Amino acid sequence: MGIQVYGFWRSIASFRVRVALKLKGLPFEEIPIDILSGEQFEPGYAAVNAERVVPTFIHDGHSVYQSLAIIEYLDDIHPTPRLIPEDVKERAYARSLALMTIADAHPLVTPRVRNHLAEAFGADAKAIEAWGRHWTTEGLATYERLLARRAPAPFALGAEPGIADICIAGQVVTAQYLKLGLDAFPAVAVLAGRCFEMPAFATSHPFEQPGFKTASAPH
Amino acid sequence: MGIQVYGFWRSIASFRVRVALKLKGLPFEEIPIDILSGEQFEPGYAAVNAERVVPTFIHDGHSVYQSLAIIEYLDDIHPTPRLIPEDVKERAYARSLALMTIADAHPLVTPRVRNHLAEAFGADAKAIEAWGRHWTTEGLATYERLLARRAPAPFALGAEPGIADICIAGQVVTAQYLKLGLDAFPAVAVLAGRCFEMPAFATSHPFEQPGFKTASAPH
Repeated sequence: MGIQVYGFWRSIASFRVRVALKLKGLPFEEIPIDILSGEQFEPGYAAVNAERVVPTFIHDGHSVYQSLAIIEYLDDIHPTPRLIPEDVKERAYARSLALMTIADAHPLVTPRVRNHLAEAFGADAKAIEAWGRHWTTEGLATYERLLARRAPAPFALGAEPGIADICIAGQVVTAQYLKLGLDAFPAVAVLAGRCFEMPAFATSHPFEQPGFKTASAPH
Repeated sequence: MGIQVYGFWRSIASFRVRVALKLKGLPFEEIPIDILSGEQFEPGYAAVNAERVVPTFIHDGHSVYQSLAIIEYLDDIHPTPRLIPEDVKERAYARSLALMTIADAHPLVTPRVRNHLAEAFGADAKAIEAWGRHWTTEGLATYERLLARRAPAPFALGAEPGIADICIAGQVVTAQYLKLGLDAFPAVAVLAGRCFEMPAFATSHPFEQPGFKTASAPH
């Protein structure tokens, strides 16, 4: 049955899973769920994912939810190359870095949050964009401070990219959505540049997905 | 040197770490950082935690950030009792459940977010409370749907409490802050009730911390 991922071209959590699968060389089928139009709330997908979010990872009929849990699961079932280091302290550092965007920066800028800002506070597009820029900048600044303490060599934890790099690259994609420059975050910019030189990252970029190309085609 | 945790009585992420340490029987010293008054942004703590959030876990001089990374680290260095199951599919389910509050529900109701709603949209206390209730209800509803699919026996993954129970209990504490009843979430209520019967949970509850007792004492 192989691997299926319910995802969306624009979803940063879907991007993380896409990169992880490609770094490991695991073939998968991505089934698009349009979270901008609210397809995740329709009964069909609600039966797949009780939280009504993407991504959902399905492996031989077994479902895993949440990008970090999915990537940990991939490391468990297919440990080469490892995306989370084996050394206990390094594992902890990698997960700490990953969670700074997964648990703090990124949750604040998802479509459901942007929509609710409009509903609850009457926020207009400009105010919602400013909100996104605020939290995305906070996340970038945290990463810049940490990468300055321990210089990437050449990736966040060493010679090969892993969960931390995937998460930082996703934070940079969010910055691209918001047209935020990275001049104030040079270590982040260098690290993301190295990531996107690799096909696993480059071909996983939201703007390289079929859904983006359809969405941005002339009508 | 032992274990130190920079935390705050009201912080749900600090609660999670407190419970994990107590379930494992590991003694620790909790150093309070008042995130309501902004102490996390002062230079002293900014040097401890580059993200300027609590908790920070320090073990023999080694720092770990982010509650989930800390609990994974505790399972690595002190595996008895395990808080994350050994079975690969069960590990994935436990982490999926944990991340539903860590990565989706809880980040939306932290003090920095509540403060920024006031700054960015002029939200008053009532509107900020409604925002918190909205997202906290979403998180509770997700847990209720999942626990209905796989009944707790008696804890989320089996006979002993683990990371998923810790995270669901934290979500229930957030509901208590917001005076949200659990009538619509009976499986969550039963699970949280079982958790708080255990001393590790009960003594970790924010309202049992010295900081809460000081903050709520008559002036």
